[in-house]
Amino acid sequence: MTTIEARLDKIESRIEIEELVSKYAQSFDRHDRDMLRGLWFEDSVLNLGSNFGEPFKGIDNIMAAAETLWAKTPKMHHWMANSIVVIDGETARAETALDCFVIDSEDGPTQVGGLYTDHFERREGVWKIKLREFDLHYWAPVSGWSAAAGADAEPAKA
Amino acid sequence: MTTIEARLDKIESRIEIEELVSKYAQSFDRHDRDMLRGLWFEDSVLNLGSNFGEPFKGIDNIMAAAETLWAKTPKMHHWMANSIVVIDGETARAETALDCFVIDSEDGPTQVGGLYTDHFERREGVWKIKLREFDLHYWAPVSGWSAAAGADAEPAKA
Amino acid sequence: MTTIEARLDKIESRIEIEELVSKYAQSFDRHDRDMLRGLWFEDSVLNLGSNFGEPFKGIDNIMAAAETLWAKTPKMHHWMANSIVVIDGETARAETALDCFVIDSEDGPTQVGGLYTDHFERREGVWKIKLREFDLHYWAPVSGWSAAAGADAEPAKA
Repeated sequence: MTTIEARLDKIESRIEIEELVSKYAQSFDRHDRDMLRGLWFEDSVLNLGSNFGEPFKGIDNIMAAAETLWAKTPKMHHWMANSIVVIDGETARAETALDCFVIDSEDGPTQVGGLYTDHFERREGVWKIKLREFDLHYWAPVSGWSAAAGADAEPAKA
Repeated sequence: MTTIEARLDKIESRIEIEELVSKYAQSFDRHDRDMLRGLWFEDSVLNLGSNFGEPFKGIDNIMAAAETLWAKTPKMHHWMANSIVVIDGETARAETALDCFVIDSEDGPTQVGGLYTDHFERREGVWKIKLREFDLHYWAPVSGWSAAAGADAEPAKA
Repeated sequence: MTTIEARLDKIESRIEIEELVSKYAQSFDRHDRDMLRGLWFEDSVLNLGSNFGEPFKGIDNIMAAAETLWAKTPKMHHWMANSIVVIDGETARAETALDCFVIDSEDGPTQVGGLYTDHFERREGVWKIKLREFDLHYWAPVSGWSAAAGADAEPAKA
């Protein structure tokens, strides 16, 4: 590639990588299985930490874990922020802060915060998540939460 | 355009589009009428959903709706996240999650969540919002909220 | 520079500037002194407003202020949103909304909101923050907050 093309490629790679981070959040919030599946390689790993069980290894186990998480926590709202992305050729790393509000089947309305660390790879020209690790900072049930509107809606179908 | 120029144009278009999403949030939070007006075409539509009334058709109706919203909810804090932007020539689409805290004249301090779906067009070289639709996920008044500092301040003038 | 190179440079500058905003948030949340120090010039200024004292002038005073803030508020979670970035040659300006949750040694769990206005410069080819100003919108202690998991963890070390 020329220098110009290499600089463009790096910018476009960053856009693809940031989109993977956004799509993880939106696919979990919407229960969008197709979008979620498209983020991973067959051999990717999702490690949400000991609060959420052993690492989920392989795309099928990741998808099965999503079903388990949705069953326990039917409503999720992820808001990703402060991504720091470092691209090195065909691999990349990102650290992204999470602000999250969920309605859990056991704990009810709950505020959640943490940090995601992602390792990405580009294979056959496509960036996907190779390893996502989550560090939970807090899981805080909210007392006296009551929704005046919308809270009984199904996950958004956009 | 050359391929290089086309790739640059797409990246610059994304930056413009993401700025429209940011400016919608900041203009509503600051009551910045000039910034808000600049986001729309004369024939643009803002549809906030049935909780907020019929769709507001045309820039003048959108601006009138903003005045009504500010009168009912004088303080708003929008935080946009997880934008997924798809650009197709002179049109584009984006889905962006909302985390929002407001002080409503009737409900008081209230947590709000939802999803915006935007349709953009580029006319005469400038990207603007053609249609913005909002899906409210919850409107949850906060019990026992008390601000130790700053909450009586006017909307930020930046 | 050619036009192409100038357009690429502006896009890359925006990426560097947005990274400074993200790194401020992540370095404060993680107590990452090296990351925080790297954001400023020797003569940079951090003005958090009257609630947080006089402006901190010079990188050493900024770093000393961080130690004071961490001592009073050992846990911070900053989520930056809605950045509006304007680049003009070797200087730039950004306005970015803040959603923040902290655990304060005096007030306990507290929701914080505000707006950062940044002035950046590029010196010797590197963008850094020349002046950061903060407008506090609210500091609201949360009643009845209790964390079921993770809240006693140390700041994240990524």
